[in-house]
Amino acid sequence: MRKIPIAVLGCTGLVGQQFIRMLIHHPYFEITALTASPESEGKKYSDVADQTQDISFPQSIHDQELMETSVDAVIKSGAKIVFSSLPAHIAEVIEKPLAAKGIFVFSNARTNRMEPDVPIMIPEVNPEHIQIVAGRVSEKKGYIITNSNCSTTGLVIALKPLMDFGIKTVITSTYQAISGAGRNGLSAFEITGNVIPFIESEEEKVEREIAKIFGKWINGCVKPANIEVNASCCRVPVLDGHLETVTVELERETDIDTLKESIRSFRGIPQDLALPTAPDIPIILREEKNRPQPMLDVNAGSPGRAKGMAISLGRLRKKGRRINFVLLVHNTIRGAAGTCILNAEFAHSQGLLGNSVRHVNSERRAT
Amino acid sequence: MRKIPIAVLGCTGLVGQQFIRMLIHHPYFEITALTASPESEGKKYSDVADQTQDISFPQSIHDQELMETSVDAVIKSGAKIVFSSLPAHIAEVIEKPLAAKGIFVFSNARTNRMEPDVPIMIPEVNPEHIQIVAGRVSEKKGYIITNSNCSTTGLVIALKPLMDFGIKTVITSTYQAISGAGRNGLSAFEITGNVIPFIESEEEKVEREIAKIFGKWINGCVKPANIEVNASCCRVPVLDGHLETVTVELERETDIDTLKESIRSFRGIPQDLALPTAPDIPIILREEKNRPQPMLDVNAGSPGRAKGMAISLGRLRKKGRRINFVLLVHNTIRGAAGTCILNAEFAHSQGLLGNSVRHVNSERRAT
Amino acid sequence: MRKIPIAVLGCTGLVGQQFIRMLIHHPYFEITALTASPESEGKKYSDVADQTQDISFPQSIHDQELMETSVDAVIKSGAKIVFSSLPAHIAEVIEKPLAAKGIFVFSNARTNRMEPDVPIMIPEVNPEHIQIVAGRVSEKKGYIITNSNCSTTGLVIALKPLMDFGIKTVITSTYQAISGAGRNGLSAFEITGNVIPFIESEEEKVEREIAKIFGKWINGCVKPANIEVNASCCRVPVLDGHLETVTVELERETDIDTLKESIRSFRGIPQDLALPTAPDIPIILREEKNRPQPMLDVNAGSPGRAKGMAISLGRLRKKGRRINFVLLVHNTIRGAAGTCILNAEFAHSQGLLGNSVRHVNSERRAT
Amino acid sequence: MRKIPIAVLGCTGLVGQQFIRMLIHHPYFEITALTASPESEGKKYSDVADQTQDISFPQSIHDQELMETSVDAVIKSGAKIVFSSLPAHIAEVIEKPLAAKGIFVFSNARTNRMEPDVPIMIPEVNPEHIQIVAGRVSEKKGYIITNSNCSTTGLVIALKPLMDFGIKTVITSTYQAISGAGRNGLSAFEITGNVIPFIESEEEKVEREIAKIFGKWINGCVKPANIEVNASCCRVPVLDGHLETVTVELERETDIDTLKESIRSFRGIPQDLALPTAPDIPIILREEKNRPQPMLDVNAGSPGRAKGMAISLGRLRKKGRRINFVLLVHNTIRGAAGTCILNAEFAHSQGLLGNSVRHVNSERRAT
Repeated sequence: MRKIPIAVLGCTGLVGQQFIRMLIHHPYFEITALTASPESEGKKYSDVADQTQDISFPQSIHDQELMETSVDAVIKSGAKIVFSSLPAHIAEVIEKPLAAKGIFVFSNARTNRMEPDVPIMIPEVNPEHIQIVAGRVSEKKGYIITNSNCSTTGLVIALKPLMDFGIKTVITSTYQAISGAGRNGLSAFEITGNVIPFIESEEEKVEREIAKIFGKWINGCVKPANIEVNASCCRVPVLDGHLETVTVELERETDIDTLKESIRSFRGIPQDLALPTAPDIPIILREEKNRPQPMLDVNAGSPGRAKGMAISLGRLRKKGRRINFVLLVHNTIRGAAGTCILNAEFAHSQGLLGNSVRHVNSERRAT
Repeated sequence: MRKIPIAVLGCTGLVGQQFIRMLIHHPYFEITALTASPESEGKKYSDVADQTQDISFPQSIHDQELMETSVDAVIKSGAKIVFSSLPAHIAEVIEKPLAAKGIFVFSNARTNRMEPDVPIMIPEVNPEHIQIVAGRVSEKKGYIITNSNCSTTGLVIALKPLMDFGIKTVITSTYQAISGAGRNGLSAFEITGNVIPFIESEEEKVEREIAKIFGKWINGCVKPANIEVNASCCRVPVLDGHLETVTVELERETDIDTLKESIRSFRGIPQDLALPTAPDIPIILREEKNRPQPMLDVNAGSPGRAKGMAISLGRLRKKGRRINFVLLVHNTIRGAAGTCILNAEFAHSQGLLGNSVRHVNSERRAT
Repeated sequence: MRKIPIAVLGCTGLVGQQFIRMLIHHPYFEITALTASPESEGKKYSDVADQTQDISFPQSIHDQELMETSVDAVIKSGAKIVFSSLPAHIAEVIEKPLAAKGIFVFSNARTNRMEPDVPIMIPEVNPEHIQIVAGRVSEKKGYIITNSNCSTTGLVIALKPLMDFGIKTVITSTYQAISGAGRNGLSAFEITGNVIPFIESEEEKVEREIAKIFGKWINGCVKPANIEVNASCCRVPVLDGHLETVTVELERETDIDTLKESIRSFRGIPQDLALPTAPDIPIILREEKNRPQPMLDVNAGSPGRAKGMAISLGRLRKKGRRINFVLLVHNTIRGAAGTCILNAEFAHSQGLLGNSVRHVNSERRAT
Repeated sequence: MRKIPIAVLGCTGLVGQQFIRMLIHHPYFEITALTASPESEGKKYSDVADQTQDISFPQSIHDQELMETSVDAVIKSGAKIVFSSLPAHIAEVIEKPLAAKGIFVFSNARTNRMEPDVPIMIPEVNPEHIQIVAGRVSEKKGYIITNSNCSTTGLVIALKPLMDFGIKTVITSTYQAISGAGRNGLSAFEITGNVIPFIESEEEKVEREIAKIFGKWINGCVKPANIEVNASCCRVPVLDGHLETVTVELERETDIDTLKESIRSFRGIPQDLALPTAPDIPIILREEKNRPQPMLDVNAGSPGRAKGMAISLGRLRKKGRRINFVLLVHNTIRGAAGTCILNAEFAHSQGLLGNSVRHVNSERRAT
């Protein structure tokens, strides 16, 4: 099979580096272009992108010449797909024009998430939302598919198996990692030995994205789900991995063992289809009293391409219809680059990357 | 006025050191004995108590000879009052026998908190509970007055001005500091760059102590308040200061300005009486979008004896009857030694340390 | 006595905030102007300067209107003295012109340190270098006096009492705090749980500044001292306080007790003159095996204005003529704002701020 | 080839866990016994050994029944080799008796390092010291081979290629990671945001071990090398990876390019023999101005079994015969378990594990 040429837009940041790491040697995709800001054009990747994570790239990446992030440059590169970790204001002027030119845009940028013809998709959670873009493909247009905000992603995966019991309200407090602010987004003097109880727009994102993701696709648009969500978002001095305490009010009575079994046995379409970046088990249920912990569990889903793609869920407690748990999600992998790539793999499985269409199956497998 | 001789039991730990710091030069109390484990008996304070906080003691403390923690030693020392930061299992065999011998025990230990004749008291919150011990004094007995768990203390002070609007449910997530585990309670390898989403018995303590503190003193016993409390307690790599996100469902409608004014103008009996360790303002309302923060606000209430005695409350948000906020409490000061001393000062004001009785006024002053 | 009007140039950074903290209520000086970048002109201090340190300012500072950093603005403000914590490239265009206009410039900027008519002065170490500027005063000109780089300052104070034994070589490795890079100078993602073994130009500064500071003032210029200095500078995840391991080769034999006594009894002119910002004891000799530590000792020299003005020196070891020790200096106080202010106080004592001249005494007092 | 049965003594600590990780699927060795303290006997590994590192063990290890650490238990288990990460006081009563019973002991414990018939061996540095034990094998006795202290190991590997230029003095300051103190060896309250400038006996170990390692094996004993070593050892808040600044006085003149080439081309016997745990390149020379850093470089030598087995060396600077550099060594891998295993692999290559003898070649290969 010939691989599909792709571009990574905004390739030098922490998420951009994760994109590259996960796309090197990808079975479907081949990196044909890396883009960055205009002043980086023509420079070698390693001259622009500081190594600030413990990621090793092959020499070919170090030596790759960067392109400017522009519609023309992408078209010229021959890329059919772009993975975007652009800042919001750049994404705003690039992503829609690319889609208009027939490019399939898989984006981590928040810019277009709330647009009606753009799904916020996590293939384990709302694969049926891919229908939002299916029509565009039949009209030979490109499209934008986004993943959700990093905190949201962990939360909706955790909530998915609980949907069977009806979810009335979700109250969450986050313990978010430094990498979520980008390489230079947070000053060391501010966060060392400290907690900062505010992250710009984060609470709003969590609250509105959940409603869209769990919304129903009816008559060509998404009707938001009727779940009350309340988020309090804080930054803590942890490098990678957002931890979240979650309190959920269920609509129906159940027992703790049924809940655990629902979580433990949960599998989504990526697992059914064995997509390359899918973890075998999307939610690792931890029974120890003090887990998950960022330092020990952030890379769950290992080894290889699916490293960091599983979320961990622990401390499941139940008092009547109120349940509590703690979850952990790798914010730059599952919460960003990884889900974006998984979305593209899922689109590929549905023939929505210009290949043959297969049946979308939104039911979980029997297991 | 002749000062009342006191002993600090368990004087070498982090809370013990705060006790000593706050009691040196105290206008009512005079340290007459410092006790520690049997093997420390006869040693100088500075030979046993490692300096691990940025606290300076006068030479007289460094040179003070330690006594063994025992009922006999306390009686022999002539102390009329003890401040106890003993480990729970030692408190269990010491505190009640001391009270039986006529000693007034002000304790930070969790051991006796749920006993019916022992109040959990924060003078700004439930000063009327001092009546639980008043009868014992008239019988010439001693008593035990405890302060609450460090996380609980911050929370109940923050909730107090909201009680006027009726509190149905409280959901809190904590970001607790390392010092809460004691000097050697937490391994550096475990918590560095990490969050540990579990603290032994902490959630249970928060949940049951609030009910008792807000309970009504009727017919000689405390009827627990009917407030639903749900706590998720986590440890973060911060030295001092527990931060807590709080979501409260109120019973009655109000508006955000009324809420703010209630918080801002809140004063308790310690403020009315201008007790030596009382902060001028018990709750500092912060209007900045990213406060309170442990690094900046943990010492609120400064300067001098009341340093760290005010809690900080910020990010007050309201959606219908649900309100959200973030609070910060200095866990070893307001959450431990400081409130314990404030309890003793309040008891003194009520003539319950063997001095003349005055009127207990549980109403807030007009301001 | 009427206070001398002063301006703080570059008042919003970490060092700028320390300047303000130490100059409020100063017995000689009165803040008449605060300057910052042009876009801050006319704004209130608290609207521009984020609080990122645990420093409380009076309301008058919060409300003070900022001026643009310019020669005209300073002259217009009526300030006779400026304290400069300007970035080097701004200092370059401001400090000399100010001195030319008769202003006495006390600067923490590195820009002019190596100029022949500008002393790098630490009053405990090389007070005689004030003669470099004395001539300018008699010509009715202003001058620039700088303090040394933060790492250098701690080191030269520690070395001063050892000069009696002759110093051949100094080999130092530094463990420098985050605040040394300024509030936003270091990304949290880079330094959390990490050591960065490089600080731009720092090693060169330490090596060349020591030679000038210990140089002799002969025939109108400073002849650099012949001390071989070798520095390795690293950043560590500590908020405040540069720790330095130091290995010194002495020229003359001595014994450990003599060394200790020399260090312990060392006093400089600021102590002799009891200058307002001088610590009683400039070098605190620690005998414990594991001190000094940033967390415990950074504020040595307390309380009040001299907080953080003493350096701490511990782990003194001797093998023949090679001695080893560890020192700690508060980098934004003693290593920056504090020494700058002490320099001005010393200049004042010598009548070099436009007041009556007294005798310069470079001998240590008898004690 | 049948694998040799081995036991890991003291298997539950951080180094013990690294031993197990590196020995699972080892081509020569097979874990037959895991030992721990008496109270762990009969328990499953995962019930005793908390997971505190991001290491995943197969289920067979989790389920393995622990034995008590005793000579009898080891003999009974059938192990021919033991890898020891025992605390010093336990090693003292176990290791020599085991060797007397014919067991080949590869130990990370400090206890026997200075014994005349026990080499401190790093196969890249002093492979010829294996002769110290060769005689015992021919007498059918067991032996003890130790690796050096974690800080020493990184240093002697870095110094080895410089030995050609003659080394007069070595002055080093260390920035040592928390894991060097063991899982519970360091309290979080002590080290968070702090530097502790003292590690018990560490400086002495570095100083005396280097002399023995670089010593000459003459007439049946090791004559210590005449290198002056001066160490200052500090703990920093880093999880894994000891960083060291090093200043070396060479005996002979050379130029920087020759030095770099010597370091870059350095290979030892483990590389020549392609031992299973040997990194391809023992010293990674970094040319960037701010490397090595623990967070980025601690796992150098990857992937697989040799992860963390290479040291990194950067910031090489030269002033006359004095050179400076910074090195980084993974303290629980190359500085402990990894070198211990490499020693066993090297002994195996020399027929000193009861197999056929080959020629010891201490010369570096031509490359």
